[in-house]
Amino acid sequence: MKKKLMFLLVIITVTIAGFGQRKTVNMPDLPGYVTLKCDFHLHTVFSDGNVWPTVRIDEALRDGLDAIAITDHLEYLPKKDFIPVDHNAAWKITESYARERNLILVHGTEITRSMPPGHMNALFVQDASMLAVDSVWDAYEAAIKQGAFLLWNHPGWKSQQPDGIPRMYDIHYKLIKNGWLHGIEFYNDSDHYPRAMTFAKEHNLAVFANSDVHSVISERFAAPAFNHRPMTLVFAKARTHEALKEALFAGRTLAYFRDMIGGKEEYAKPFFYQCVKVGKPYYQNDKSIFFEVTNNSNIPFYLENGVPGAPATITLAANSSTRIVLSKKITTPLAYDVKNILTGEKEVLRVELKY
Amino acid sequence: MKKKLMFLLVIITVTIAGFGQRKTVNMPDLPGYVTLKCDFHLHTVFSDGNVWPTVRIDEALRDGLDAIAITDHLEYLPKKDFIPVDHNAAWKITESYARERNLILVHGTEITRSMPPGHMNALFVQDASMLAVDSVWDAYEAAIKQGAFLLWNHPGWKSQQPDGIPRMYDIHYKLIKNGWLHGIEFYNDSDHYPRAMTFAKEHNLAVFANSDVHSVISERFAAPAFNHRPMTLVFAKARTHEALKEALFAGRTLAYFRDMIGGKEEYAKPFFYQCVKVGKPYYQNDKSIFFEVTNNSNIPFYLENGVPGAPATITLAANSSTRIVLSKKITTPLAYDVKNILTGEKEVLRVELKY
Amino acid sequence: MKKKLMFLLVIITVTIAGFGQRKTVNMPDLPGYVTLKCDFHLHTVFSDGNVWPTVRIDEALRDGLDAIAITDHLEYLPKKDFIPVDHNAAWKITESYARERNLILVHGTEITRSMPPGHMNALFVQDASMLAVDSVWDAYEAAIKQGAFLLWNHPGWKSQQPDGIPRMYDIHYKLIKNGWLHGIEFYNDSDHYPRAMTFAKEHNLAVFANSDVHSVISERFAAPAFNHRPMTLVFAKARTHEALKEALFAGRTLAYFRDMIGGKEEYAKPFFYQCVKVGKPYYQNDKSIFFEVTNNSNIPFYLENGVPGAPATITLAANSSTRIVLSKKITTPLAYDVKNILTGEKEVLRVELKY
Amino acid sequence: MKKKLMFLLVIITVTIAGFGQRKTVNMPDLPGYVTLKCDFHLHTVFSDGNVWPTVRIDEALRDGLDAIAITDHLEYLPKKDFIPVDHNAAWKITESYARERNLILVHGTEITRSMPPGHMNALFVQDASMLAVDSVWDAYEAAIKQGAFLLWNHPGWKSQQPDGIPRMYDIHYKLIKNGWLHGIEFYNDSDHYPRAMTFAKEHNLAVFANSDVHSVISERFAAPAFNHRPMTLVFAKARTHEALKEALFAGRTLAYFRDMIGGKEEYAKPFFYQCVKVGKPYYQNDKSIFFEVTNNSNIPFYLENGVPGAPATITLAANSSTRIVLSKKITTPLAYDVKNILTGEKEVLRVELKY
Repeated sequence: MKKKLMFLLVIITVTIAGFGQRKTVNMPDLPGYVTLKCDFHLHTVFSDGNVWPTVRIDEALRDGLDAIAITDHLEYLPKKDFIPVDHNAAWKITESYARERNLILVHGTEITRSMPPGHMNALFVQDASMLAVDSVWDAYEAAIKQGAFLLWNHPGWKSQQPDGIPRMYDIHYKLIKNGWLHGIEFYNDSDHYPRAMTFAKEHNLAVFANSDVHSVISERFAAPAFNHRPMTLVFAKARTHEALKEALFAGRTLAYFRDMIGGKEEYAKPFFYQCVKVGKPYYQNDKSIFFEVTNNSNIPFYLENGVPGAPATITLAANSSTRIVLSKKITTPLAYDVKNILTGEKEVLRVELKY
Repeated sequence: MKKKLMFLLVIITVTIAGFGQRKTVNMPDLPGYVTLKCDFHLHTVFSDGNVWPTVRIDEALRDGLDAIAITDHLEYLPKKDFIPVDHNAAWKITESYARERNLILVHGTEITRSMPPGHMNALFVQDASMLAVDSVWDAYEAAIKQGAFLLWNHPGWKSQQPDGIPRMYDIHYKLIKNGWLHGIEFYNDSDHYPRAMTFAKEHNLAVFANSDVHSVISERFAAPAFNHRPMTLVFAKARTHEALKEALFAGRTLAYFRDMIGGKEEYAKPFFYQCVKVGKPYYQNDKSIFFEVTNNSNIPFYLENGVPGAPATITLAANSSTRIVLSKKITTPLAYDVKNILTGEKEVLRVELKY
Repeated sequence: MKKKLMFLLVIITVTIAGFGQRKTVNMPDLPGYVTLKCDFHLHTVFSDGNVWPTVRIDEALRDGLDAIAITDHLEYLPKKDFIPVDHNAAWKITESYARERNLILVHGTEITRSMPPGHMNALFVQDASMLAVDSVWDAYEAAIKQGAFLLWNHPGWKSQQPDGIPRMYDIHYKLIKNGWLHGIEFYNDSDHYPRAMTFAKEHNLAVFANSDVHSVISERFAAPAFNHRPMTLVFAKARTHEALKEALFAGRTLAYFRDMIGGKEEYAKPFFYQCVKVGKPYYQNDKSIFFEVTNNSNIPFYLENGVPGAPATITLAANSSTRIVLSKKITTPLAYDVKNILTGEKEVLRVELKY
Repeated sequence: MKKKLMFLLVIITVTIAGFGQRKTVNMPDLPGYVTLKCDFHLHTVFSDGNVWPTVRIDEALRDGLDAIAITDHLEYLPKKDFIPVDHNAAWKITESYARERNLILVHGTEITRSMPPGHMNALFVQDASMLAVDSVWDAYEAAIKQGAFLLWNHPGWKSQQPDGIPRMYDIHYKLIKNGWLHGIEFYNDSDHYPRAMTFAKEHNLAVFANSDVHSVISERFAAPAFNHRPMTLVFAKARTHEALKEALFAGRTLAYFRDMIGGKEEYAKPFFYQCVKVGKPYYQNDKSIFFEVTNNSNIPFYLENGVPGAPATITLAANSSTRIVLSKKITTPLAYDVKNILTGEKEVLRVELKY
């Protein structure tokens, strides 16, 4: 019997191995850093997801990601009648699969509790099963002992905060006091938590946009309004597992979803100026000068509140050059709010176009 | 702990249950029969597929199917280190899930052997585990005892027939002599086996087009050239499990893939005339008469070898009316070959447009 | 020279004539009427549009329309340095072209004035040049003498009403008093005028959704959010020019754009019930009954404000069947607001699903 | 009356002027040259096209082109009953419109004759009306006197060469002898003339891919199989009208259509190596080394006829990195044919991947 199956096996393996293309996602680097496109919140059949772990790798490659973490629930295992509990299973299955495909794989898991404290991803763990303990604090401690990064997931999830607004409870303050809380989701699946930005700035947390996907990425985010899957942009010193970890603990991230960027101004501002270049005037007449602004990223930028006399709004379409016709009477710098770069709960980035 | 998880569980269940829309696929019924859109060859994590069984139900609903069979391999179980062997697992997981969603679910499995005899689906089994025996003949016998329909899968699969051309071996003749072989795949995944039509006609087998999908349907058949997933059209007396079974054993099927229809003329011909209606002339001038031909199906029809004087070729786009301008000099019936309706290994359907 | 060009000419003519397919747009008929899909506001190079008139015919066929009117401006002719003024040119060029393609062509023109009275289409004219007179009232009178239908275009166009809200001036009341104003645009291009519905109901005007396109239809309405071009649905006794005219003067229309329907309840209500059919329950358990609601139209319907105990909201996707799982405790009729069927400035249609 | 229209006019002008974004088309520069994306064969309502000339500018911007020529027929003017003959009309209408939008506009026209000599574009003319003369040779001479570049259009057009194969007649040899023939279309609309490459190499002509569009670009090339409009890639010393002209007369072009590149090896080879970069190995095991090949262009490259032991075929998807798993046993250079870079009538480019 075994011998008869050999030929069959060879064929199937080869076919699967044939797959392997990583789409280029246009996200410029920052000076001194490479911009890694990441998703740190993914589920598989080993908790309540619907796909085999290797699917998450294939999806990440196709979507042009550099790094992912598979973070199956420790406590919620609805498929356990058919799949025996093994909190490290997804890691075992994908570790070499990812390495051979040049994808950085972060060993993660999700500590899944009621609010407070809610759900928390532990990233960069060694053995997820050590975190499967009754007391949530013991679980956090076990994670920290393994050197983990703790990420507060969907802090305003309506199932746990019916008004959708994140709140910090005693346990969150205790985590912060201990230096144990490192990140917070600004975007999760199709949800958005503006208040998370306030917490991130007050407590120096890295901001994230993660998919938290249970089904299939390409189907979950197929609606044109989404445009792309949620991604956490990480500014790392190199494209390595170690440099990624250093960058996350240092908080060098931006959250990216639905053509929105969220994060601290210190990263958002240079990122915008790496994306957008103002060309020299190519023409002028009596009244106006004409120049192009080139956006070299996948993100359209929506400029508004222009200075008087300038165009009130400008849309810098992704991967495009936009023509600006400017009255020669304008002498003030060409300043705009970037409507879709959020640098605070209610703040957007202010930029200048120097032509 | 359990109590704390309760609220969480409720939310997740409700969200998943919210899904439930079946796209209308325009495939007219035949007089006396309803046309069921089906896929009888699907894999899940319970053999070498990459998705949980309920995904196959959700995909089928979204694609507008009426019936599917999940047919995990009996002999090829590469995930068994993580998922214990249970040949009926997919059935147990999906039986009520499908019923509540008005999808006809056929209990199936794939008997997976080298060629000869190759791979064979057993459909309408009671307990797939009874077929997991060493001797392939014993497996067939166990299937037949359960009332199964035996379907010869991808008979010219290049891994088993390097030239891609199906061949009948002794065991196939023996199956046919016993009345144990009932169907054959004309299309499987992206492959096409014209010779299968010859076998189907000689031995009175039902023809099939099945996806044999291991990954995600929407991704596997995303290429514009595919246009849709493979489907077996079954002409049943009613939209029920029993009527479906009766129709399959009676051989009332057409295979449908890549905008091609394959099958016996006795079904292909009336199917074409149900799809295509010729309108009355709406205008004429000295030289020509003008009328519209309406195609009420999702299948474009490519007509060629028109009679002299008529348009040499006509494309009847799917779900569209096509204008025909015909010379008044033409007196012969307006006959065409339908290039994409295959009624034999090298034959296409000849039709007449009566205006 | 001429002879040499002959062969060339023949080829080009034949190639263009080969085009001719009308997409089926699923819009059910009302009892006693056929539903004609129409666009009564289109521009070409003969005023300020950018395409040759035959392009409007080809676009209409491809989009599955039954009737159009080309309505070039009488007063605004920015291309007149290159194209001599001929207010009937588009009509002359397309009349036989449309007839040979089974498209109903309405002879129209746009009387283009400042507000008040704003822009007005005259439909069903005999000679548009008779309307090119100084006094706007004389222009209206000339139109009425030809038997024209007068349609008030974009009554709240921001270039003429900066707040976007339609207002009736003396001249509009005078037109109504004379029985000379017959219709009003509820949708124009991407604009929407809710107040137009109030005027339509008070003064018994037919409501319209027209594209007012100047560029290319497929490009202008390419954004996924539009989903389709604006259409005026006309409920006519037959698919003829005469029946169309009778239906318009009788006010039997609905406006359709961006998956919204706007119009009087007497047409909106039966139209909804022709689109949506409730199936018999296909399954039940202790707690719930299961049935499907089938939407046979291209328009998704968004139901909300369900009765207590029923699903609060239901989306009936276009050309799909939607599963409803209903608690057996519900005894009241299953009533919903249809969020995207507007029967007044602030009213939506209330419907019942009888299962 | 005039005053009343003023406000209206202002609005319409502003709206049209708002448009102005140029999509980035990823086509790397060659060392010392910028790669200009061009289309030198376009029609408008001023001959047998269906759009106003400014539409060709807007289309070019949206498609990311750097330069175009509008080339209306001199001899074939089917719209002359409505539009008076003016062979320079399109140029007058678009000259400043293009300049203000940073698009290089080439003044062109099409000398439209039976075969021989067939159709010929004159590019870089000063006054097209001087070419509207009876004798074709006189027309050529008038063009050359204006400094024109003569381009042989669709040399195997089936309306003029029923077998589709280009042939050189006496007049073509005479043109070449005089140094008056400078270029030839390798692709025209959806047609492809392999033999044109032979002529191009023998007689040192620049190769072109032009759309020859009469209708709307986005509709004509909407089919997924086309993927993009035809483009002539020109390697110019700068992005200016003068540099473009110099490059064309120097023959520095490649033809690009349907994901195929056609042209002389001296441009095709460095272009490939600018598009494709081989990364350093990122992983290796006992048997294999793993590296990525990054394709920074919009063109997928199909590699085949790999050396023994290497993958037989590799697809380098556009704007993607492709993983290569290579046996350590391979010691020969990694050479491939690039199936879709045509350097001769029957030759493809041979390349080496140096890892």
